[in-house]
Amino acid sequence: MKYILASQSPRRRELIGMLGITFDIEPATGEERQVGDTPQEIVQNLAAAKAREIAAHHVGEETIVIGADTIVVCDGEILGKPKDRADMERMIRMLSGRTHEVYTGVAIDHITGNSEETDEVRTFAECTRVHFYPMSEEEIANYVAHSDGMDKAGAYGIQSDAAIYISGIEGDYQNVVGLPIARLYHELHRM
Amino acid sequence: MKYILASQSPRRRELIGMLGITFDIEPATGEERQVGDTPQEIVQNLAAAKAREIAAHHVGEETIVIGADTIVVCDGEILGKPKDRADMERMIRMLSGRTHEVYTGVAIDHITGNSEETDEVRTFAECTRVHFYPMSEEEIANYVAHSDGMDKAGAYGIQSDAAIYISGIEGDYQNVVGLPIARLYHELHRM
Repeated sequence: MKYILASQSPRRRELIGMLGITFDIEPATGEERQVGDTPQEIVQNLAAAKAREIAAHHVGEETIVIGADTIVVCDGEILGKPKDRADMERMIRMLSGRTHEVYTGVAIDHITGNSEETDEVRTFAECTRVHFYPMSEEEIANYVAHSDGMDKAGAYGIQSDAAIYISGIEGDYQNVVGLPIARLYHELHRM
Repeated sequence: MKYILASQSPRRRELIGMLGITFDIEPATGEERQVGDTPQEIVQNLAAAKAREIAAHHVGEETIVIGADTIVVCDGEILGKPKDRADMERMIRMLSGRTHEVYTGVAIDHITGNSEETDEVRTFAECTRVHFYPMSEEEIANYVAHSDGMDKAGAYGIQSDAAIYISGIEGDYQNVVGLPIARLYHELHRM
């Protein structure tokens, strides 16, 4: 069996290594459109679109393609990657002193035959609640000036410079980093 | 102000770097005796003993010494580092399919004068609950054969090969790794 991770995220590449399986990396390039009524549906649809895009290049090969997508939801608003530093400041100001949710959707696309229609696609979503300390104006300004969160949903990485502002979480930590590796391990085991 | 981390743990060294302050490393070497009636008291006493041991070498210098200690508590039993692989197996079997608590105590020893008696020592403890998936006999055997958890309280590292067995946590993730960096940042800020 061949395994492919349809993501260009260095954090997901590192996490997938915990499974002890060799993965090829083939990032999906398609446009990310948010389809669905709930955060869970949206991230599963985005993950499935990524997995299907890559799976389409491997029809007829015995392959499992993993797609994943992460969004941050605060006060009913979906926060993707910030557009610019001003947008980063807006997002961090929203998260400061509050609890928000991080959803990662994962799609496991098992190519089983010579047509895309026969693929078995399994998807799931994990939710983790994240609690931020209140941040001072000085901390916000410092964060916006120096943070590496421009390429991350919600404008922060829990594993990097936002760590000192996060008082705790409820749920899977790696789900916030970008891939719920424990759940993925168990789902793959079941297949 | 000079800062010293009284720990030889590479994980704590890495975490303390998140504070953006330069720390010297001077590991405490004293015997670790568990004193106290509760896990919170025990880890704070252990952390304070480490910090005081190193602070004693710097009397009269304007210095802050940080000590830390982590224990795992499952079903009322305190789990330290496993004695051998058989002890690791016993611990992992206890944790499998259950929720346990991880306590890290931190001591901040601020050397203020020319006598150890005048030091200001502030201690606190953080608790994080950790949920393990049930592990099969095969998974336990594989874990015991290959895990890097021999030098870790409770025989596991949440950031390494135990990650795929942990369904979620409640509290600070870095507290389980070995240092509640967000709380420490805020305590230092207050001083």
